[in-house]
Amino acid sequence: MKIALDAMGGDFAPLAVVNGAILAASEVEPNTQIILIGQEEVVKPLLEQKVNLPDNLEFMHAPEAIGMAEHPLKAFTQKKYSSISVGYSLLKDKKVEAFCSAGNTGAMLIGAVYSIKLEGLSRPAIMSYVPKTKGGHAIMLDVGANTDCKPETLQQFGEIGSVFFRQLYQIEKPRVALISVGEEEEKGNLASQTAYKLMKENSRINFVGNIEGRDLFKDIADVYVCDGFVGNIIIKMAESYYEILKKKNFTDPFFDNFNFELIGGSPVLGIDGTVIIGHGISNPQAIKSMVLLAQRMVKADIQSKIKEVL
Amino acid sequence: MKIALDAMGGDFAPLAVVNGAILAASEVEPNTQIILIGQEEVVKPLLEQKVNLPDNLEFMHAPEAIGMAEHPLKAFTQKKYSSISVGYSLLKDKKVEAFCSAGNTGAMLIGAVYSIKLEGLSRPAIMSYVPKTKGGHAIMLDVGANTDCKPETLQQFGEIGSVFFRQLYQIEKPRVALISVGEEEEKGNLASQTAYKLMKENSRINFVGNIEGRDLFKDIADVYVCDGFVGNIIIKMAESYYEILKKKNFTDPFFDNFNFELIGGSPVLGIDGTVIIGHGISNPQAIKSMVLLAQRMVKADIQSKIKEVL
Repeated sequence: MKIALDAMGGDFAPLAVVNGAILAASEVEPNTQIILIGQEEVVKPLLEQKVNLPDNLEFMHAPEAIGMAEHPLKAFTQKKYSSISVGYSLLKDKKVEAFCSAGNTGAMLIGAVYSIKLEGLSRPAIMSYVPKTKGGHAIMLDVGANTDCKPETLQQFGEIGSVFFRQLYQIEKPRVALISVGEEEEKGNLASQTAYKLMKENSRINFVGNIEGRDLFKDIADVYVCDGFVGNIIIKMAESYYEILKKKNFTDPFFDNFNFELIGGSPVLGIDGTVIIGHGISNPQAIKSMVLLAQRMVKADIQSKIKEVL
Repeated sequence: MKIALDAMGGDFAPLAVVNGAILAASEVEPNTQIILIGQEEVVKPLLEQKVNLPDNLEFMHAPEAIGMAEHPLKAFTQKKYSSISVGYSLLKDKKVEAFCSAGNTGAMLIGAVYSIKLEGLSRPAIMSYVPKTKGGHAIMLDVGANTDCKPETLQQFGEIGSVFFRQLYQIEKPRVALISVGEEEEKGNLASQTAYKLMKENSRINFVGNIEGRDLFKDIADVYVCDGFVGNIIIKMAESYYEILKKKNFTDPFFDNFNFELIGGSPVLGIDGTVIIGHGISNPQAIKSMVLLAQRMVKADIQSKIKEVL
């Protein structure tokens, strides 16, 4: 297995990525190769400082880099030799099984849609974990790729989220819920009300109805569906709670589950390849977790199962 | 000042409301009268058990009651003599200055729109408090009255929220922010992107741009604007955090601010009268807080200032 990793992505790149890659290289399975993509002049010196570089870590030069604040579409289409573009080329040509980056989220999404879009899926989604108070977690999608979603798109998120959950956790019929403002079918906004009707009739998902904001951490469902506007606000709000509690020195197993360093990143689901977008502030620990998550996803064969369903 | 209070509203009504009304009666200003509206056969016996009923608490009979789970529109239009209908009649006829209920939220909203809608405002909004980590709080609207909002409606929420904040806290130019998924103007869903443009040009509000989910508890703005779908999910999620932390015995001044018992309820803004909707699970303490909030709002003359602005 080969996993490409964007050395130029993230607020602390390339150093944090290089160090994270080295951590990951010693923890991945023996046959897994990590390909670090970046600008030779800045990444190579960092690698050369290290003694005993792992054998399963190789470097690939990409002459350009996309900045965190650059306009995603412009940057991706104009910088054809950026580390993000090179990563997607490798993925498209099946030279790697996965591509991870803590870089420009917009450019990563544009790259996914341009390079490895799946037939039959209206839009890919970004997925995130939502811990449960009783242990374990649900997954939520979309958390930021699509701010306005048609009901059919929300339904598809339920389908692809189900595949992810089934493949990764061996649960035959993951429970799918629609995030809304009341449990009743007629509660919600126009898109979610119509999505409810579609999902109720959809035999490919085990739809359990609406879930409210107050129940997100309960064990009511496994897959939460919402548009990327709502999902992004929820995830960022959860992140702020984690930060506030950390500052107040309150540690607790439930809240520790919100630690992005351990989660590693957010998979992009509904594309022809495994892609994970890391947090902009990723440190080496977070980079390592991202690579390990990519490895698990490839092993669970999630993307090809999603292809089958669509 | 006269404040009407729905004795039949809430999961623990009428007992919790009767007890809350008695608590409130001893804390309101001397010239404030509380009018408890409910079914004589159930409320009167509770009042008769009390010794030394406060003079400023009077009872008014309403032969019908709207249940918490009843269909709001049907219930409000068919039960013309329910406590909610009677409360709105009093408010419409200016026999009371405020009406409070912890009852059926939908019926309370329908009642507001049917009885005391304001000319020039597309839709009233439900407002909620959002505590800040450094102390104090912002207000957020809408948190549940309108699941789909036009950009113009979002803009109006910014205007009426500004009036509320200015009147209640003597801040000349409250900072207004739009809840979104990024700080930049072009971030957001279709409605919020257009609302951004409108609000930026609106001289009646001090617009400070978008605010993300991770910044809601920071001191970036005073008035948060969003549609009722997003706002409801945020508020209920915040409530669940409060509950989880309470269960874990973590007490902290910041998190205590999320205690609905102390807040009392959510004002409905943009109607011709002061209306507060309490939490369904309101206990006597919450009922008391709701009445005291109504008193503050009437004294600050918020509704007529909103009328002026529109």
